[in-house]
Amino acid sequence: MRIVVLAGGIGGARFLRGLKKAAPDADITVIGNTGDDIHLFGLKVCPDLDTVMYTLGGGINEEQGWGRSDETFHLKQELAEYGVEPQWFGLGDRDFATHIVRSQMLGAGYPLSAVTEALCDRWQPGVRLIPMSDDRIETHVAVDIDGERRAIHFQEYWVRLRASVPAHAVVPVGAEQSKPAPGVLEALSEADVILFPPSNPVVSIGTILAVPGIREAIADAGVPVVGLSPIVGDAPVRGMADKVLAAVGVESSAAAVAEHYGSGLLDGWLVDEVDAAAVERVEAAGIRCRAVPLMMTDLDAAARMAREALTFAEEVRTV
Amino acid sequence: MRIVVLAGGIGGARFLRGLKKAAPDADITVIGNTGDDIHLFGLKVCPDLDTVMYTLGGGINEEQGWGRSDETFHLKQELAEYGVEPQWFGLGDRDFATHIVRSQMLGAGYPLSAVTEALCDRWQPGVRLIPMSDDRIETHVAVDIDGERRAIHFQEYWVRLRASVPAHAVVPVGAEQSKPAPGVLEALSEADVILFPPSNPVVSIGTILAVPGIREAIADAGVPVVGLSPIVGDAPVRGMADKVLAAVGVESSAAAVAEHYGSGLLDGWLVDEVDAAAVERVEAAGIRCRAVPLMMTDLDAAARMAREALTFAEEVRTV
Repeated sequence: MRIVVLAGGIGGARFLRGLKKAAPDADITVIGNTGDDIHLFGLKVCPDLDTVMYTLGGGINEEQGWGRSDETFHLKQELAEYGVEPQWFGLGDRDFATHIVRSQMLGAGYPLSAVTEALCDRWQPGVRLIPMSDDRIETHVAVDIDGERRAIHFQEYWVRLRASVPAHAVVPVGAEQSKPAPGVLEALSEADVILFPPSNPVVSIGTILAVPGIREAIADAGVPVVGLSPIVGDAPVRGMADKVLAAVGVESSAAAVAEHYGSGLLDGWLVDEVDAAAVERVEAAGIRCRAVPLMMTDLDAAARMAREALTFAEEVRTV
Repeated sequence: MRIVVLAGGIGGARFLRGLKKAAPDADITVIGNTGDDIHLFGLKVCPDLDTVMYTLGGGINEEQGWGRSDETFHLKQELAEYGVEPQWFGLGDRDFATHIVRSQMLGAGYPLSAVTEALCDRWQPGVRLIPMSDDRIETHVAVDIDGERRAIHFQEYWVRLRASVPAHAVVPVGAEQSKPAPGVLEALSEADVILFPPSNPVVSIGTILAVPGIREAIADAGVPVVGLSPIVGDAPVRGMADKVLAAVGVESSAAAVAEHYGSGLLDGWLVDEVDAAAVERVEAAGIRCRAVPLMMTDLDAAARMAREALTFAEEVRTV
């Protein structure tokens, strides 16, 4: 079975770990979000790709969900001693190696997809991880700072400001001119199932869908497309998805996110049991819906969610 | 008193620490060797400049004489996990920060001299540290590998091969086309004393002298030029200077090094007491010579050597 998963960071990575356990023989391709990539200290940092790679490759800091296990922060401390900005982004000593290798390969002319493949040679994530695009796309967030509207990098909004100010718009700068990375459209066209894990619908999956051709390839794939709600009981399971949902005019609820994707894209949508009341509304929008436990408390819970998604995909297919 | 010192790495840095103690009110300018600079992992590494900066700024690993104190090597370990070469150069996590800041500034268009000044803003070495040139100069060493003569980077010869094969030539590639960095010639023309610390006469001081204009500026300065022998008892005090002396056809002795510099450059030469027999030979070459203790066993010993050099400079001046 060929499964394609659109993934952001922590939520996507943990779901993927469950999926690998639920479907150990499946051929899994992950289309990773690169909209939150950032250039820091002359290095190219790809937080979502790395979170997937480290999580599936056994190098993740389990507690925080991002960054490396057994990490130290001496280099970062020294950069601060030099007074170098920004100081709000937490790059660890081990993590820096990934960005150095990536930056060196990019500088040598390799596209990000080839670089990601090379990095995965080491980590052996057990999936094929492809960035959504080899082109530079950077998610910017419009916020008011000192009474003035400004567009800041998503990471500055998310990490430095902790999404503490209203986001008026979220724009994947560069997306319109971008192309899917090699392998993305092919994977979608050959997929048996396409899954949207409980990732951020705006700045993770929404950014991937903003790459021209990807949304169409999903809609045209002719295979079940099943998503899992990142919102449980009207609040994001993790992170601050509600903040960016507001920016795109979508209420923070399991049903509203399904409607935001729409029946042109989604065939099935899983909501948490606490959102059972949303099933009717989602189905009224032309999307099959089911309420199942959606809290990824551990690997087994993630595997159960993945199994539910695959089972639901079969049901959706045969209808 | 304005003192200009030509410095390589460990020997020069330790001598400078002694000089600062011996002449706390002096205005000291250090012309640093950049011939052993190397590009590693996309970063510009300047080992000699950093050794001077860390040593005088209180950040040096005292035991090994190079690199940072309280250092860890997680980034380097990770690079090795990625299979990235070279793995023989020991960059620590804290040390990497210096190279990242430097590389970012160079990439932004600042010349190395301005970058070095910015780095020294943090370290406050108490001297003005200027790279010999803002131009790229790279010392290459001709060696026979598998029966074939090849030119390799000095660091590869020194660090990876530990100078274990004969050096047939030492060439500061790029030196002929280079210019002294801003401030170098001015400092030499305004100096009251010029000192050659017990640094490597070929790959440290020799490289500095290979930058067109520097040798002439020293010879024409009209002030005492006093050197301290890096060879004690026919063996280098530290490092493997004998290996590269052979490459330039100079015997490994205190007297031969003085003759190598020549009376056109040197006014005075200090040799160690064990080399007292060399005094006559050096003076026969037109260079004033004196035997004093030259083992920099600690800061006080280095300060005593610096005091001897300054005293000797006064004697040389009045003759």
